[in-house]
Amino acid sequence: MNGNDHGAAEPYYAVIFTSRRSSGDNGYSEMDQKMDELVAHQPGFLGVESARNDSGFGITISYWSSLEAIRHWKNNEMHKIAQEQGKQVWYDNYTVRICKVEREYSFNG
Amino acid sequence: MNGNDHGAAEPYYAVIFTSRRSSGDNGYSEMDQKMDELVAHQPGFLGVESARNDSGFGITISYWSSLEAIRHWKNNEMHKIAQEQGKQVWYDNYTVRICKVEREYSFNG
Repeated sequence: MNGNDHGAAEPYYAVIFTSRRSSGDNGYSEMDQKMDELVAHQPGFLGVESARNDSGFGITISYWSSLEAIRHWKNNEMHKIAQEQGKQVWYDNYTVRICKVEREYSFNG
Repeated sequence: MNGNDHGAAEPYYAVIFTSRRSSGDNGYSEMDQKMDELVAHQPGFLGVESARNDSGFGITISYWSSLEAIRHWKNNEMHKIAQEQGKQVWYDNYTVRICKVEREYSFNG
């Protein structure tokens, strides 16, 4: 899934999740894949993009049609378990930013 | 510089730059470092965070106090040269999203 091809007009919403992973996998990859599958079926979900440096610092941005859709996903029961595991095991630290996308433009070479 | 420690209260602004690099360095690293130094001195600049996958897909987010500060940086003469080189040489494609950060929260384990 690619945040670039969701075709939504602005304004829509972005959740910026910046994080530093703790060392070791500890079940992270399996849960990450589960969450990817689960989020794709959420109402108002438009796409997700992710990148991580070798140092362990990563950025994941999910795109949403509304603030209500973001709240709904945050309160998903399976996602809440993942969030709790994230704090206990997978992340040293993270920041979540809820953003309104006001304008966008693209270049395709 | 770290987007997490700028201490700005919401709302402030984020510019999400998602990109796919073309192959080869072709002067990218040198310009990237120059831009890092230059942007740090721009009025209204709050911080920048960046991550890139081994595949070449990357996300850079810069944080700003106002839309005017973002416009000012976009029109910086040296930055405009870098933007043009970006299209000609360094990026296969990219998307820029101008966002208003409405809310944020952090976890520190």
